[in-house]
Amino acid sequence: MKEFDISAVAKDLEEALQHKIDNKTKPVGALGRLEEVALKVGLIQQELEPQLQIPLLAVFAGDHGIAAEGVVNAYPQEVTAQMVMNMVGGGAAVNVFCETHGLATKIIDAGVAAELPPNEMLIDRKVAEGTQNYTEVPAMTAAQCNNAIEAGAALVSQWSDEGTNIIGFGEMGIGNTSSAAIITSLITGKSIEECTGKGTGLDDEGVSQKAKVLAKAIEAHDIDGDPFSILQTFGGYEIAMIVGAVLQAAEQQMVILVDGFIATAAFMVACECYPDAREYGIFAHQSDEQGHRIQLNYLQANPLLQLGMRLGEGTGAAMAYPIVESAVNFLNEMASFQDAGVSQGDKE
Amino acid sequence: MKEFDISAVAKDLEEALQHKIDNKTKPVGALGRLEEVALKVGLIQQELEPQLQIPLLAVFAGDHGIAAEGVVNAYPQEVTAQMVMNMVGGGAAVNVFCETHGLATKIIDAGVAAELPPNEMLIDRKVAEGTQNYTEVPAMTAAQCNNAIEAGAALVSQWSDEGTNIIGFGEMGIGNTSSAAIITSLITGKSIEECTGKGTGLDDEGVSQKAKVLAKAIEAHDIDGDPFSILQTFGGYEIAMIVGAVLQAAEQQMVILVDGFIATAAFMVACECYPDAREYGIFAHQSDEQGHRIQLNYLQANPLLQLGMRLGEGTGAAMAYPIVESAVNFLNEMASFQDAGVSQGDKE
Repeated sequence: MKEFDISAVAKDLEEALQHKIDNKTKPVGALGRLEEVALKVGLIQQELEPQLQIPLLAVFAGDHGIAAEGVVNAYPQEVTAQMVMNMVGGGAAVNVFCETHGLATKIIDAGVAAELPPNEMLIDRKVAEGTQNYTEVPAMTAAQCNNAIEAGAALVSQWSDEGTNIIGFGEMGIGNTSSAAIITSLITGKSIEECTGKGTGLDDEGVSQKAKVLAKAIEAHDIDGDPFSILQTFGGYEIAMIVGAVLQAAEQQMVILVDGFIATAAFMVACECYPDAREYGIFAHQSDEQGHRIQLNYLQANPLLQLGMRLGEGTGAAMAYPIVESAVNFLNEMASFQDAGVSQGDKE
Repeated sequence: MKEFDISAVAKDLEEALQHKIDNKTKPVGALGRLEEVALKVGLIQQELEPQLQIPLLAVFAGDHGIAAEGVVNAYPQEVTAQMVMNMVGGGAAVNVFCETHGLATKIIDAGVAAELPPNEMLIDRKVAEGTQNYTEVPAMTAAQCNNAIEAGAALVSQWSDEGTNIIGFGEMGIGNTSSAAIITSLITGKSIEECTGKGTGLDDEGVSQKAKVLAKAIEAHDIDGDPFSILQTFGGYEIAMIVGAVLQAAEQQMVILVDGFIATAAFMVACECYPDAREYGIFAHQSDEQGHRIQLNYLQANPLLQLGMRLGEGTGAAMAYPIVESAVNFLNEMASFQDAGVSQGDKE
């Protein structure tokens, strides 16, 4: 697997940033989680006046051999390609939220099981037309998995060169909640039953059948806990590309908006490989997918939003961006007690 | 008290709006609370394509005679006037969040206990230089309270004429968490101890002292539960102005962003007078002030955001606006399954 050069976030500016936050015209701590976000972005950027530049949301799409089992997803596989073209045309939820909140959107074909019509809005990095069915063989070869990781990293490197310093990752792929459930189970040690949820719309009976298929798939392989092997065997091209993208973003000290069950599975794989990557993540939204709670507990993460969404695509990251923007703006633009001539409380 | 002509929100379009929401390219219900907000805004505006126009946040400021007791607030009374001038100068948190999210900000002197320098950004509707100390006499006369209600209503009427159809209300007033605590206790029937919190920064001992002063204040008056009497006796000019503003906004079928302990106390008074006003409110943020939970339970409200803020000023309303905007935009701009040629799940 490609190597990355990821440093821990330096804490040198912590005291100066906290002092700046505490001297804004408000009671100490009164902006709650926005203060935590402001501190974090300042530390990641090593700046008392951090700036968010060309915020970007990248949606990676791929198909999954497991979809052939028929019981793990509520939608047919062709929906992956249809939804990619919907995103390319600007009609999906993630497009609307990115447009509303000023994020650029990038749509990447990581491994959709269809020949997609060329389109200037579609970035073609297709490794193969969908993964293999991991109830029988590994989803990807080691070379394919590496290719996907490298492609994700190269894209982030290019966007970073173009000025982006805050990035979120989304995904589209019928069957990919199954990959995410297995990855989550194998990394956290929680049972596959606990990690398996409704995906885009299974009922309770469907969830139970899905968990059985996934349990059998896990048994079919001899996995020793190495995160790359887990990814290669049970992941998807879109997931592997997000792993590479996350690691490159951490290497380049970007702020990473972490969202959703599938993207968080990729983030977990990245953090298993490079634990320091964890500190570049801001957790966007608590998904209704039950495995997401297990992931967040494992990562000791507390997302900014709880809006009951369960759509993926990076919609939660797009929705959380205005909060990060607000945090950075209060840090840079609010008056201090001294500037505004406001008396400070004697009980602080 | 001035009369308002407030209708219940008509439900005629509910089925058509829900159909539109369910046919967007996403699993049914997958946008969680955004779907609920989209439906609500569509119903309030009686529109399948609702539009948010000139979103506005109005901050009403007033001083409180109770502040003379010295134990109910962590900051001296002069901070009200200082913070009003900070807001007029654009340096407060609410200014930054409104600027970030595209809301106009209006700052109104409802009853600050100081002569404020004239400023084109400051709307002077001062009824008096602060309320009376309600440990002894009613905070306002009936005439003063009515004047404040009418002034708030007139401002909203003017902003509505100028095109605003979504509005949030904030406040500034040293000592006003005490008013809000008493109003909350008297309307909900919960004890004053339960409704009293830290305000801008009291410690546990301070909260206990504050509750004792407020309990004595309640005993000093003979209140029969009439909401106008509660407001007149224990309210503030900024609170009374928000009551009038809320009622006028409901009369004009505007979407109301309800935020914070003090503004929600005003909203409760408005709803006690006109229960149909309740349906025009979208609850923005769960404050850390403990009395706010009691208010929300009473109103059966579940705010969109939980960011641990406890600042007032309408900051939560400003932070929630991008969520409402996202909800309206997905309703208007997302493709339907039919438009995008995406297959629908057979399990929906």
